[in-house]
Amino acid sequence: MIALLPVEGLPEVRPGDELADLVLRAVQLEDHDVVVVTQKAVSKAEGRLVALDEGDAAARRRLIWSESRRVLRERGSLVISETHHGFVCANAGVDLSNVARGQAALLPVDPDRSARHIRDALHARTGLVLGVVISDTFGRPWRAGLTDVAIGCAGIAAVVDLRGTQDALGRPLAATEVCTVDEIAAAAELAKGKATAVPAVVVRGLDKAWFRESSVRAEVVRPHRLDLFW
Amino acid sequence: MIALLPVEGLPEVRPGDELADLVLRAVQLEDHDVVVVTQKAVSKAEGRLVALDEGDAAARRRLIWSESRRVLRERGSLVISETHHGFVCANAGVDLSNVARGQAALLPVDPDRSARHIRDALHARTGLVLGVVISDTFGRPWRAGLTDVAIGCAGIAAVVDLRGTQDALGRPLAATEVCTVDEIAAAAELAKGKATAVPAVVVRGLDKAWFRESSVRAEVVRPHRLDLFW
Repeated sequence: MIALLPVEGLPEVRPGDELADLVLRAVQLEDHDVVVVTQKAVSKAEGRLVALDEGDAAARRRLIWSESRRVLRERGSLVISETHHGFVCANAGVDLSNVARGQAALLPVDPDRSARHIRDALHARTGLVLGVVISDTFGRPWRAGLTDVAIGCAGIAAVVDLRGTQDALGRPLAATEVCTVDEIAAAAELAKGKATAVPAVVVRGLDKAWFRESSVRAEVVRPHRLDLFW
Repeated sequence: MIALLPVEGLPEVRPGDELADLVLRAVQLEDHDVVVVTQKAVSKAEGRLVALDEGDAAARRRLIWSESRRVLRERGSLVISETHHGFVCANAGVDLSNVARGQAALLPVDPDRSARHIRDALHARTGLVLGVVISDTFGRPWRAGLTDVAIGCAGIAAVVDLRGTQDALGRPLAATEVCTVDEIAAAAELAKGKATAVPAVVVRGLDKAWFRESSVRAEVVRPHRLDLFW
């Protein structure tokens, strides 16, 4: 069984906060837990906030373009671009919700590094084997509705390669590299709700074999030459 | 807390099997459970199997094209197409893994109807309020690794519209339609593993407000005119 446990009762996150400490005050972790932390909480803790007048469409657009490596589509106020990390998402992750008026939150500079920082701090304080996933809410082509995906991870496999193993009938499996961290982020979202200020969820009971050093940037961001939709 | 419970000990599914009966023999359901069933199990129960010689690349390609409304990309043996349901996925869902040699499994003709059938059968036998999600494993552009998504659902909201509600700081939220059934499918995948013959997972503890009539085709398949990537 896998359990998805919302971490409730966290204070509003402020620049300079050590998220590991906030989480450990709210929840008792166990060996092989994965702590999923929202991008918003990480960006706030890291001070990735900039002044932005909500009504200033031109300033908003400049900010989104400056956070982008390349713009793929633009329609009305919606920009689909590739961020400097290599993520393809709406508005380069620039977000006005759940931040103070007059401010916008940017994505962490290096979300894998952010995840490692939190994981290292959690490990230093508990001695436990833990994983950390930083989640954000992305749209996708062809399917309506948003889902949470991983933008950074540490201590848990981003992709689990089942190629070469056998299916239930003993035939070799082809093309079954599963993006476990995206599934972990999606699962966590079910437990956190959207407007209820739950910036972290503990996922308990995952396969112990999945706990290893990993990186969303190295394993999930697909190089352009391997992607049919660039 | 949300629990993800693999339904273990199911027999190999055969054409004509009533999946509701197989599930109920293996697990004790509770009110507001969602039962996630893999496409493969549903396709087998519905007899959506066709003869296909694995080595016959031309026959395989013909089959994939016949299951497609439109082909978007083709590279080597990989075809990315839009199925007759409107799903954009690899090889139109034609799948050789976990089926007998010499056979291929096709997607259900109407996966929402398949989900309703299972949900109705489960409800008739238990009297419980239940949801059913049919899951399949899809790739996606720009991100490596596969994740499970919903291709059909019944009794559980495909998309939960949080627009118009407020964020934790009291500001109105914009663009937060969450595709809950895709997140449920992804979560279930974490509990089922890939080669271990677990064709169903029970998701327990979801928000009771999400239980309503719904449809992946109506709510998740995005009309071409609303999609920036057609």
